[in-house]
Amino acid sequence: MSEQTDLDHFWAVIPAGGAGTRLWPLSRQESPKFLHDLTGTGRTLIQATYDRLVPLVGDRMLVVTGQAHRAAVVEQLDALDETAVVAEPSARDSMAAIGLAAALLERRDPDAVMGSFAADHVITDLQAFRTAAAGAVAAARAGWLVTIGIEATYAATGFGYINVGAALADARGAFAVREFVEKPTVEVARRYVAEGYRWNAGMFVCRPTVLLDLLAEQDPDFAAALRGIAVDPSTLAEVWPTLPKIAVDHAVAEPAAAAGRVAVVPGAFGWDDIGDFASLETLLAGEDDLTVLGEADLVRSVESSGLVVPGSGRIVAVVGLEGVVIVDTPDAVLITTLERAQDVKAVVAALKQDGRGHLT
Amino acid sequence: MSEQTDLDHFWAVIPAGGAGTRLWPLSRQESPKFLHDLTGTGRTLIQATYDRLVPLVGDRMLVVTGQAHRAAVVEQLDALDETAVVAEPSARDSMAAIGLAAALLERRDPDAVMGSFAADHVITDLQAFRTAAAGAVAAARAGWLVTIGIEATYAATGFGYINVGAALADARGAFAVREFVEKPTVEVARRYVAEGYRWNAGMFVCRPTVLLDLLAEQDPDFAAALRGIAVDPSTLAEVWPTLPKIAVDHAVAEPAAAAGRVAVVPGAFGWDDIGDFASLETLLAGEDDLTVLGEADLVRSVESSGLVVPGSGRIVAVVGLEGVVIVDTPDAVLITTLERAQDVKAVVAALKQDGRGHLT
Repeated sequence: MSEQTDLDHFWAVIPAGGAGTRLWPLSRQESPKFLHDLTGTGRTLIQATYDRLVPLVGDRMLVVTGQAHRAAVVEQLDALDETAVVAEPSARDSMAAIGLAAALLERRDPDAVMGSFAADHVITDLQAFRTAAAGAVAAARAGWLVTIGIEATYAATGFGYINVGAALADARGAFAVREFVEKPTVEVARRYVAEGYRWNAGMFVCRPTVLLDLLAEQDPDFAAALRGIAVDPSTLAEVWPTLPKIAVDHAVAEPAAAAGRVAVVPGAFGWDDIGDFASLETLLAGEDDLTVLGEADLVRSVESSGLVVPGSGRIVAVVGLEGVVIVDTPDAVLITTLERAQDVKAVVAALKQDGRGHLT
Repeated sequence: MSEQTDLDHFWAVIPAGGAGTRLWPLSRQESPKFLHDLTGTGRTLIQATYDRLVPLVGDRMLVVTGQAHRAAVVEQLDALDETAVVAEPSARDSMAAIGLAAALLERRDPDAVMGSFAADHVITDLQAFRTAAAGAVAAARAGWLVTIGIEATYAATGFGYINVGAALADARGAFAVREFVEKPTVEVARRYVAEGYRWNAGMFVCRPTVLLDLLAEQDPDFAAALRGIAVDPSTLAEVWPTLPKIAVDHAVAEPAAAAGRVAVVPGAFGWDDIGDFASLETLLAGEDDLTVLGEADLVRSVESSGLVVPGSGRIVAVVGLEGVVIVDTPDAVLITTLERAQDVKAVVAALKQDGRGHLT
């Protein structure tokens, strides 16, 4: 079979949510991470995600995003039919978002295989990604809930990991998932990497019915509610607020893995979820000590290294700072270090606490 | 004699020049250091200098500043008669500025004693300053060129020093000056402090005729030119560009000291010339690790120390930086450290080089 045949009826589901708090002040509640060009390519993260998936699915795509961001998403994905952008009345975590897409696709295309790919991740080797996705689709057709396991290139503490088991007889290139494990400490992460664990990028590929049936085993009402919305979309606004707030990992993937019903297809294609400015710097770092995202002509540096994002048109001058992070925007400027990049969320929390939430 | 009698005919000369390059982007060519409130008191440095001298001289004051800054000076010193603010057609260093004031005062008040006090210095103990100034005036009446020698409280490398000699017979509380020495290395500075050298703050007190006659011994044409301008001020614009660019220290003070004609009156009144952001931080530092000059409500800090100047109305957030310096202005933001504060001038030089001099 050619890859093209394999990919008939393959649908891409793009959950577009998350504020990206640790990327403040670039990422804001009203303008989250996925709406920004964080790679300096001229395409925002959700546009790059669309570009990456079009060769696999053409127009078989569903974006699920917050009501507040639907207009921006429709505008950024101008090649996509507007009806392909589904608005959540409120944020109810990933199970509700992906489950709604599954329920809609279950009715729309009985032969559908869906793959969920976050709108705010970065992938550098597109061909390797497409090959892994095609392998996941094949395993999904065999009835597995399939996840793409990213090669762990270092002992990351910011990602969950996948404990990879034996090769599957009924799905070439796929392996059983022994267990999904949470974000580890550095020591544990080193052990995971040594033992061949892979990063969990939240890329789930499966037949919509498989996902909803697995959910039904854990929470029948939740699955029924999602299927009910698909039958009568006019009930969305009424039903949505009653849905549990839970991640698809906890609601379905982990129990399914425990039951031996999850497969993993290895992938090695330069993946990152750009969790904070340190990972953004790692992604963008070039020859120079100081990496600039934006108009380099606005930056004057003397014996400094790190990441500078000039985003207000003002001159940013830095003298004698190693591993610094400077993010300049029209209403806020952040100064921190690559080492402390995770702690940016503390500033966002402080701003919310003292009545400056409009800046977050 | 009461101090008041001593101070009859005492004139204050305030040279208001210097760009304060190491205080960029707060201090600019078009809006230098002395026009800014760097102490958070609500008064600019030149206003604080005026406040400090009024009790000594009343309205016997001459400010010598650049043509470009005269309007701002007149506006800030609204209690001072506008004719007391003399404009230099161009910057020709301190000998021309102070010498012009001397020539004007020589004709205006034969009994005048003048004291030159820079517009951009900070003094914390006003009573001690006034006492030292009164002592200097007394010695100046005896014919000495008098400098006020500031107690060297640490081994500063940013100031010149005064080598103090024997007590003078004809001027109570004054001492002979053996030598003025340039800014030393740390090692040399330590020795100077140990040996009782004092800081040279450029505070010269003398009879105008004494200053001009001492200048005439070194450069008769220079002294004659200055006196000529005083006779016919309409020649200022024509004569000024021909005057040598030299500091009063080199033109008069050093040779006069070598000739045993300079006296020093000790002073200990908390003096600083705020040469860079590190000295500004030392001056302002209070209880908190992080010192804020301006609207503290605009600053959010997490485990950070140093100096933040929020000057654009934007939020300045700093996370995990020790000894940092952050200066936020509407068109430029500077990030450096207390240790590297001296190197800010490198950024200004870079901006001038690549055609952004308007920002300096």
